[in-house]
Amino acid sequence: MTNNIQRVSQLLAENKIDWVVLSGADAVCFATGHVAQIEIGLSPFAGGPTLALISAEGAAGVVAPNIEGQQLMDLPYEIYEGFAFTVTDQLSNFRSAAQKLIKKLGVSGRIAFETISFPSSLKDILVGDFVPFDTPLARLRAVKSDHEITLLRTAAKVAAVGQMAARKHSLAGRGELEVLNLTRGAMEMAAGERCALAGEYLASVERTSVLGTPPGSYVLKDGDPILVDLAPRVQGYWGDSCNAFIVGGNATPEYQEVFEASKSTLELAMAELRPGLRVCDFDKQLRDHMHGLGFSYPHHSGHGIGASVHEFPRLLPDETAMIEEDMVLMVEPGAYIPGIGGIRCEFMLHVTSTGCENMAPFTMNTDPLK
Amino acid sequence: MTNNIQRVSQLLAENKIDWVVLSGADAVCFATGHVAQIEIGLSPFAGGPTLALISAEGAAGVVAPNIEGQQLMDLPYEIYEGFAFTVTDQLSNFRSAAQKLIKKLGVSGRIAFETISFPSSLKDILVGDFVPFDTPLARLRAVKSDHEITLLRTAAKVAAVGQMAARKHSLAGRGELEVLNLTRGAMEMAAGERCALAGEYLASVERTSVLGTPPGSYVLKDGDPILVDLAPRVQGYWGDSCNAFIVGGNATPEYQEVFEASKSTLELAMAELRPGLRVCDFDKQLRDHMHGLGFSYPHHSGHGIGASVHEFPRLLPDETAMIEEDMVLMVEPGAYIPGIGGIRCEFMLHVTSTGCENMAPFTMNTDPLK
Repeated sequence: MTNNIQRVSQLLAENKIDWVVLSGADAVCFATGHVAQIEIGLSPFAGGPTLALISAEGAAGVVAPNIEGQQLMDLPYEIYEGFAFTVTDQLSNFRSAAQKLIKKLGVSGRIAFETISFPSSLKDILVGDFVPFDTPLARLRAVKSDHEITLLRTAAKVAAVGQMAARKHSLAGRGELEVLNLTRGAMEMAAGERCALAGEYLASVERTSVLGTPPGSYVLKDGDPILVDLAPRVQGYWGDSCNAFIVGGNATPEYQEVFEASKSTLELAMAELRPGLRVCDFDKQLRDHMHGLGFSYPHHSGHGIGASVHEFPRLLPDETAMIEEDMVLMVEPGAYIPGIGGIRCEFMLHVTSTGCENMAPFTMNTDPLK
Repeated sequence: MTNNIQRVSQLLAENKIDWVVLSGADAVCFATGHVAQIEIGLSPFAGGPTLALISAEGAAGVVAPNIEGQQLMDLPYEIYEGFAFTVTDQLSNFRSAAQKLIKKLGVSGRIAFETISFPSSLKDILVGDFVPFDTPLARLRAVKSDHEITLLRTAAKVAAVGQMAARKHSLAGRGELEVLNLTRGAMEMAAGERCALAGEYLASVERTSVLGTPPGSYVLKDGDPILVDLAPRVQGYWGDSCNAFIVGGNATPEYQEVFEASKSTLELAMAELRPGLRVCDFDKQLRDHMHGLGFSYPHHSGHGIGASVHEFPRLLPDETAMIEEDMVLMVEPGAYIPGIGGIRCEFMLHVTSTGCENMAPFTMNTDPLK
C-alpha cells in the first residue's frame, strides 16, 4: 500500500492548504492507488473524472463510477451509477456522489485543485478558496515512494519483455502494425492484464528519420532500420524504453556509428546520474558527448515517469531543478539522419543515494534476436 | 467531409444559442472530423481538451495541441505547444490558444457547453451566458450523416474481422490475453491503424457467467464457452460486436439452447427495427421474446454508437425516445447462466427508411472457425 496520501497531506500543510481535489487519473492513482480506466478516453459511463479528496490532516476519499468499483477497502468511497440498466443522468449521479463525499469529509477552506483536469461541474458544489496546485504536486510526484518504485520496476520489466519481443518479431514480410501487435501481446502476457500503450514502432530509413509518425501498413524488408519505443501502463504505472536495430542484422557502418553514439551517451548517463546534479547540467553533459561524436537530437534528453508516462522533471537545457534520490528518469539520446535512419536508446533509471540503477536492462544492439 | 458543423449550427439557431464549445473528444470528432488521441487518457502533452467552437451562423474553429496537429485544412486552427523541447506551461499555452480563437471568431452571447468535459480553465476566458447542451447534442448525434454512416460501416467491418479472428485464434492452450491480442492485431491490420479497443474476451463457464470481468491469464481448454465483445475505434468512429462459441466446438444442448435464444432475439430485432418505433416498445419486444424462450438479460438491449462507443438512445425499458432513420444501433441480447456460461449476440444495425441494414454481418454460431 502506498503512503502517498500522507505525503500529499504533508505538502498541503506546508502550503497552508486545507484540502486538495485530484481529478487527473494519474494523480488519483499516484495518491491513493485507485486505477482508473483510461484506454477509451473519457468513458461514456462517467459523469466526470474519478476524484480523490485529501486533507492536510490526512483524511481522504474517492469518487468513482460503478464500472471502476471500490478498489481500496480502507478509504471512504462514493460510487455512483455510470453504467446503468435504466435511463440515468451520469452527471447528476457524479455530482451527488461528490457532494456526499464533500459533506462527509467536511471539505472547505483553502482548496487546491489540478488546473487542467478540474471539472467545471464541481465549481458550484465546492465552497472555498481555490488554489492551483500543479507545480507543488508535480515536484512531490517526481520523487517516488518505495511502493511506486516496485510498481515502476514491474512496468520497466514489462517494457523490456516488449523490447525482446520486438527484436524477435521484426521479420521481413511483416507489417509495422503486425509486429507492434505481437510485441504488445508479449507485454500484456507478461503483465497479466491489458496495458494502455504509448510509444512508436517504425521501419525503414525514411520512416524512422521523421519524429511523430504513427505505425502503419509498411511491410518490413531485410536491412530496414527499426525504431521501437514501448511505454506500457501496468497496474496504473508506466514503463518506457527504446531501442533500434536492423531487420535481419548487418547494420551499415554509418548506422552502426550513430547507434554507438546514442548507446554510449546512454551509458554516460548511467555513469553520471546521481542526486545533486542540476537537470540542465546533466542534460548538457549528454548533449556535449553526443555532439562530440558528430550527432545531436532535437528533443529532450529524457523525462520523469510514474503514474503518468511523462512527468516532471523533463531533461531539458532550461530545466534548473535538482536531481534527487528516488526520482525515476527516462534517458533517451538518439539521432535521426536522412539516408541512414532514426535511432534512440532509452533505459529507465532509478536515482539511488549514490548513483543510479537500470530498472530493467535489456540487450541493446543492432541485431535482431536470433 | 462531414456536414455536421452545419447540423450543429442549425441546432444552435433553433435553441437561440450563439455558440457552442465542444470539449469531449467524441463531440469534436462528430462535429468537425478532427480525431483526438485518446488511448493513454488525458495526454501529459495537453493543456486541456481539444476544443471545437461552432456558431449558429456556421463559423467554426479548433484548438488542438501540436501532437495532434491541424488535421482539417478548411477550418481555422489554433495549435499550441504541448510537447515542447523547452520547459513550457501547457495550461498557459492552451489558454492562450483558446483565447486567440475566441477573439478571432468573436465568441460571445449565449454559449452552450458540454457539462461533463467543459474545462474549468476556460471559465474566465469565455464571457457569455452559459447553457448546458448535452441533451440536444446527444439527440442530434443519434441520427448519423452519410459520412458518419460510411465511417461506421468501416468500423463495423473491422469489428467483424475481429470476430472471425477470435473464432480462429481461440484454441485450447492459449490464454485469454493472448487470443484477445491476436484478435486486436487482425483488426488493426484491417483498419491500417492502431485502434482503441473497448469490449471483453472471456473463456470458461465461470468467467463468461459474470458481467464486467477483465481478460486475464486464464488458459482456454476444449469445451470452454467464449464470450467475445469487440469495439474498435477506427478513424474516430466505433464499431461494436459480440459473439459466443465453444473452444473446439461441440456445444452442450443446454448451451446451444441459450445461444439459439439469444440469436433468435437478435434476428427478431433485425426483422422489427424500423423508424417510428418507440425504443421502450422495441426493447419490450426483444425481452418478451427472450423471456418466452426461458431466458433474460440483466442489461440494456443495446445502444447508439458513433464517435462514442455508447450513445443515445440506449435501448432500455424506460427510454421513450422514437427510433429514427439513420440511427445506428447496437442490439445485444444474451443470457448469463451459472453452470452453462454467458452468451451475447450483437450486430451493428443501421436504421433505414423502411427497416434496417446489418452493417457488417459475420457468421454467428457456436463452432470455432475451422
